[in-house]
Amino acid sequence: MAYKETYPSALLTDAVEAIGTLPGVGRRSALRLALHLLKQPAENVHHFTESIDRLRDGVHYCSRCRMIADEDICSICADGKRDQRTICVVESVRDVMSIEATGQYHGVYHVLGGIISPIAGVGPSDLTIKELVERVQALEDPASAEIILALSGDVEGETTAFYIYRQIEATGIRVSALARGLGFGDDLEYADSLTLGRSIVNRQAFKV
Amino acid sequence: MAYKETYPSALLTDAVEAIGTLPGVGRRSALRLALHLLKQPAENVHHFTESIDRLRDGVHYCSRCRMIADEDICSICADGKRDQRTICVVESVRDVMSIEATGQYHGVYHVLGGIISPIAGVGPSDLTIKELVERVQALEDPASAEIILALSGDVEGETTAFYIYRQIEATGIRVSALARGLGFGDDLEYADSLTLGRSIVNRQAFKV
Repeated sequence: MAYKETYPSALLTDAVEAIGTLPGVGRRSALRLALHLLKQPAENVHHFTESIDRLRDGVHYCSRCRMIADEDICSICADGKRDQRTICVVESVRDVMSIEATGQYHGVYHVLGGIISPIAGVGPSDLTIKELVERVQALEDPASAEIILALSGDVEGETTAFYIYRQIEATGIRVSALARGLGFGDDLEYADSLTLGRSIVNRQAFKV
Repeated sequence: MAYKETYPSALLTDAVEAIGTLPGVGRRSALRLALHLLKQPAENVHHFTESIDRLRDGVHYCSRCRMIADEDICSICADGKRDQRTICVVESVRDVMSIEATGQYHGVYHVLGGIISPIAGVGPSDLTIKELVERVQALEDPASAEIILALSGDVEGETTAFYIYRQIEATGIRVSALARGLGFGDDLEYADSLTLGRSIVNRQAFKV
């Protein structure tokens, strides 16, 4: 049954519309959130909105890797214990956080800010590929350094990886990509055949 | 597997924590929303936060029925076409909107602002019951007016309804409650036995 909402207040209507622009938040949820905020003490609501404004207005992007940072250089690039000659290329800030959460990576990053996608109208010049190439060219003895292309396994990801590879291959830097195969704990029976096929072709030496 | 997030920025951490206080929004969703807001133009984000601040700071509650309003009297109470002598008592602003959405009600409301709940520490004095009693007492010829107790069917709702009934019965006002029974389109086979039992006891004249 169609459910027509009648809003009793223009202020409420505006707030519901604004909250409803968030991804994954429909009008019903937006109303629920607006009424929730109305019931909170004013100082809590102001803290909520101020922290969002402060984030949007105060955010920096690392001038080296384009990661979100509070300073001109992010805490990863500024960390002397990290290997500055291993650069992991990712699509987004979110990807950096996912890789950091594994605790398995000790190099630095380069955030592209998107992926090449002719359908979405995103070309190489919309990304930080030029900055990546300059960064690689500025490395001393690039042949002993490494670029890890940690991009998604779809057409856009492969296209972007190939484009970047072409731009930097002349420097002689070692280029690697994320291992693809069955996930840990995955059952062979339920694996898709493309992944299973690649994990046979790219089989690894058995380690005990 | 436990997933430990590493936030690259104090501003991001603050915003994620603030967004995560919203009901039904976990840390993962809060991060997704924060990164979404970061990608929006600053003016959109400011419009978003301002509309929330304006709602919280500018909201009025109708001095008659306690509904959200932009003025001192809400648009329902101020509407001359509505029957001011039929007062529907509800728990929350949300309930007014639900009943308004049905288009079936042409009286006015009284918003209690909660429900009597000893467990949650909510007593009659925390609600607008005193204001309701005064409103009923101020009616001319209350015996020809009506109160509809549109409260939920659980113990708290029944307790609150009974308490209000006791407070206003001396005025002689007619007191009714929402009809309870099977929902339209409900299948007998799957109805809970309490609802089915009540819908037999409270059977209605067959209308064609």
